[in-house]
Amino acid sequence: MRILGIDPGIAIMGYGIIDYDKNKYKVLEYGAVTTESGISKSMRLKDIYDNIVSIIDEYKPDVMSIEELFFNKNAKTVITIGESRGVTILAAINSGIAVKEYTPLQVKQAVVGYGRAEKAQVQTMVKAILNLKEIPKPDDVADALAIAICHCHSDIMNAKLR
Amino acid sequence: MRILGIDPGIAIMGYGIIDYDKNKYKVLEYGAVTTESGISKSMRLKDIYDNIVSIIDEYKPDVMSIEELFFNKNAKTVITIGESRGVTILAAINSGIAVKEYTPLQVKQAVVGYGRAEKAQVQTMVKAILNLKEIPKPDDVADALAIAICHCHSDIMNAKLR
Repeated sequence: MRILGIDPGIAIMGYGIIDYDKNKYKVLEYGAVTTESGISKSMRLKDIYDNIVSIIDEYKPDVMSIEELFFNKNAKTVITIGESRGVTILAAINSGIAVKEYTPLQVKQAVVGYGRAEKAQVQTMVKAILNLKEIPKPDDVADALAIAICHCHSDIMNAKLR
Repeated sequence: MRILGIDPGIAIMGYGIIDYDKNKYKVLEYGAVTTESGISKSMRLKDIYDNIVSIIDEYKPDVMSIEELFFNKNAKTVITIGESRGVTILAAINSGIAVKEYTPLQVKQAVVGYGRAEKAQVQTMVKAILNLKEIPKPDDVADALAIAICHCHSDIMNAKLR
């Protein structure tokens, strides 16, 4: 199974592609898509959409795993992340792959085994689980890999399909 | 100038297409795109995107006029509207038309002349300005037409381009 993990955002979107087979992980690629603050929001959304379509086209994942929104951010941030999530999910659906969503609590539970784990603990476990030499930077990339791992750890039948 | 007004949403999205030339309005079409609550959110977002692309393809508006989000709704609603706004804006950009956003205050100011007007006043003015026999239903449709009128009334140079 090949999973595309996404940490959504409009200025920076983290992504990571991993293969998971019989409890073994293989990292294929990870990185961040950034958009310029100087261009219109519409064009930034298009940039994100086009980049995700390209990534899916290149790596052909079976599923997109994406984090559900925090509710405790300010309203303006939530709206903007909502918009970028909308085009991210659409990129998956228009490319014919399924989308699964996980809460931050589910991601931490899956990666660290503890739903209230600190960010540093999550990053350390991502590095260990995926056998990476360093913790991927920026944080959005490590988060995207954590979200991809979460999908592997989850019972797919119990996953929240939206 | 032909304007596509949109009142975004995931369960129901209002739209209206009007021509505006030398202070005269002509209504071409209005209605609501609805999505089934029983299908996945991903597919509902795709439905909205596909419907808007079809509407743009049929009527070839010059611009999409869309309402900015209220901030006072609950977080879950804001996120969902954000996601539907994201795919709505993307449909415009991928179809090659510009997107303008207006706040509810700007819409009321433009349609009624008073930023704190009641919904009923806005609807009555939409009916009068567009010379309609009845107030379009549901509210989302009347709102979409109000948003389209707002763009006509606004100084385009001062409009908020995103």
